[in-house]
Amino acid sequence: MDIQHIEDAAIRLQGQIRTTPLLESPLLNARLQRRLLVKAECLQITGSFKFRGAFSALSTLTEAERDRGVIAYSSGNHAQGVAFAAHQLGIPATIVMPDDAPKMKLANTQAYGARVVTYRRGVDSREALGVELAERQQLRLIKPYDEPLVIAGQGTVGLEIATQALALGINKATVLTCCGGGGLTAGIAVALATQAPKFRVIPCEPDHFDDTARSLAGAERVRNASETGSICDAIVTPEPGELTLPILRQYCPFGLTASDAEVVQAMRIAFEYFKLVVEPGGAIALACALREDHRQTLGDDPIIVTASGGNVDTALFLSLIHDA
Amino acid sequence: MDIQHIEDAAIRLQGQIRTTPLLESPLLNARLQRRLLVKAECLQITGSFKFRGAFSALSTLTEAERDRGVIAYSSGNHAQGVAFAAHQLGIPATIVMPDDAPKMKLANTQAYGARVVTYRRGVDSREALGVELAERQQLRLIKPYDEPLVIAGQGTVGLEIATQALALGINKATVLTCCGGGGLTAGIAVALATQAPKFRVIPCEPDHFDDTARSLAGAERVRNASETGSICDAIVTPEPGELTLPILRQYCPFGLTASDAEVVQAMRIAFEYFKLVVEPGGAIALACALREDHRQTLGDDPIIVTASGGNVDTALFLSLIHDA
Repeated sequence: MDIQHIEDAAIRLQGQIRTTPLLESPLLNARLQRRLLVKAECLQITGSFKFRGAFSALSTLTEAERDRGVIAYSSGNHAQGVAFAAHQLGIPATIVMPDDAPKMKLANTQAYGARVVTYRRGVDSREALGVELAERQQLRLIKPYDEPLVIAGQGTVGLEIATQALALGINKATVLTCCGGGGLTAGIAVALATQAPKFRVIPCEPDHFDDTARSLAGAERVRNASETGSICDAIVTPEPGELTLPILRQYCPFGLTASDAEVVQAMRIAFEYFKLVVEPGGAIALACALREDHRQTLGDDPIIVTASGGNVDTALFLSLIHDA
Repeated sequence: MDIQHIEDAAIRLQGQIRTTPLLESPLLNARLQRRLLVKAECLQITGSFKFRGAFSALSTLTEAERDRGVIAYSSGNHAQGVAFAAHQLGIPATIVMPDDAPKMKLANTQAYGARVVTYRRGVDSREALGVELAERQQLRLIKPYDEPLVIAGQGTVGLEIATQALALGINKATVLTCCGGGGLTAGIAVALATQAPKFRVIPCEPDHFDDTARSLAGAERVRNASETGSICDAIVTPEPGELTLPILRQYCPFGLTASDAEVVQAMRIAFEYFKLVVEPGGAIALACALREDHRQTLGDDPIIVTASGGNVDTALFLSLIHDA
């Protein structure tokens, strides 16, 4: 995985994706006494960055592969990304989703025209189910992060961050990413390594689901104890990817975490200062940026956070913010 | 007021404002069976388009005028726009605001460094108060819409719409604007008349506060019966502007209205499909676009709506959406 893969993906994505804004709030900057910028990928088509990786991968398939169709397993954002990319390219798509996925994510994936198959999170193995369906029907499996074409697509977020930040006079920064399997983090890290080499990339995860932070801290790839129990449904993965972890080891010095309560506060800050709807898993990087102890750890450089997605059920959003 | 004034304003605003995205949702398009695009000015610095007009005007002041300072009266968005533009230019600012303005608007205007003077809406005359303070302290009054430099600044929204829509393959469209005094509508209309002459501009107002629609329908400039009683605090003005109405008569064939309940539904649609926080007055154009009878009136062209601002108190937003 190098910058050329990401630049190739950017060419495939031209005219398909939206260049999302890099937002900044003078009032929040004053409160934090530093620059904080939000890369608003919740405004991306399908409501998350996942459309980039999905279209990047699907647009390289052969005619025969397109005819047979694709399959993906996902908690909901990769699902929507693959479903809509498949729709745009005229490819049949089957998506394997947990039956407790947010209703909006299930409904939208179907609305984009995909066939949805559900499984029980923590009971069935989505990987096994995906592989079985793929083999039986000869579908091309589009993995959510352990797929170079997907990582390259997510890396286009990094290309945009570099261009936009430099235009705002920022040539040294800490970039906090929302990290599940590590596809977004790996892609951004590779992109910035050449496009903005003074930008440091730090993956952010929910407390108790910090498999990436713990893996970065040691020599082993470690798993989470549970696959349920966080509000951050989009980024609760069993362990870091096989392809992504070595990339993260190369570029990311450590990982950070925040609590569910801090995530909800970050969602509220995104709402009030940036006028953005951000889902829990998409707010973990902002939550880490707002933690005072993390800010001290990170030093004085401007902080750029990804707001990776906005696909949250309205009722849940209202109750989380109301009770915060 | 012609295109040159707007292009001059665009030059003054370069590097100060954000080019806000023109967003589109495939799922909402499918539901409406047409293209609907949202110009997300709620993402503008200070949370509304008003910063454009404010900075456009303040950046032309002489040294002596800057030293004496500026004054503005506003329900809250022009207040924040003038306060932050003044802060950026090092100009002292006094803002006259109704005491029932949203708390966020009052607090932010002060946080940007302005002195805030409150009046009772529907009891005191803010215009008289503004003129008196301006004369006593020799402050330059920055009117919210009856000021060519302000109209020119708001017109830069129209320049962006033309460029962005054409890039999306749209060369004929109906543009619905959120209309209070008419500054945004007039500026956009002038800009589009030369930059995208097949774009028609239609002002949108709350039911019972349709002074612009009624003025356009006859020969007289007519007033609203009340200045209170709508949730759309940002766009409840007594009557169309003296400068803006003649421009609207030249370019806008008629005006549309929607109810408060329809505005709340539009806020929910903006939240769910576009991941945007839009305040009531900023959602009136989307509310009109979603009304089936209006859609039939407007024909089949793509509809572009301004989402003019996002400065809504969180508690009010939650209760409005929860009860909708």
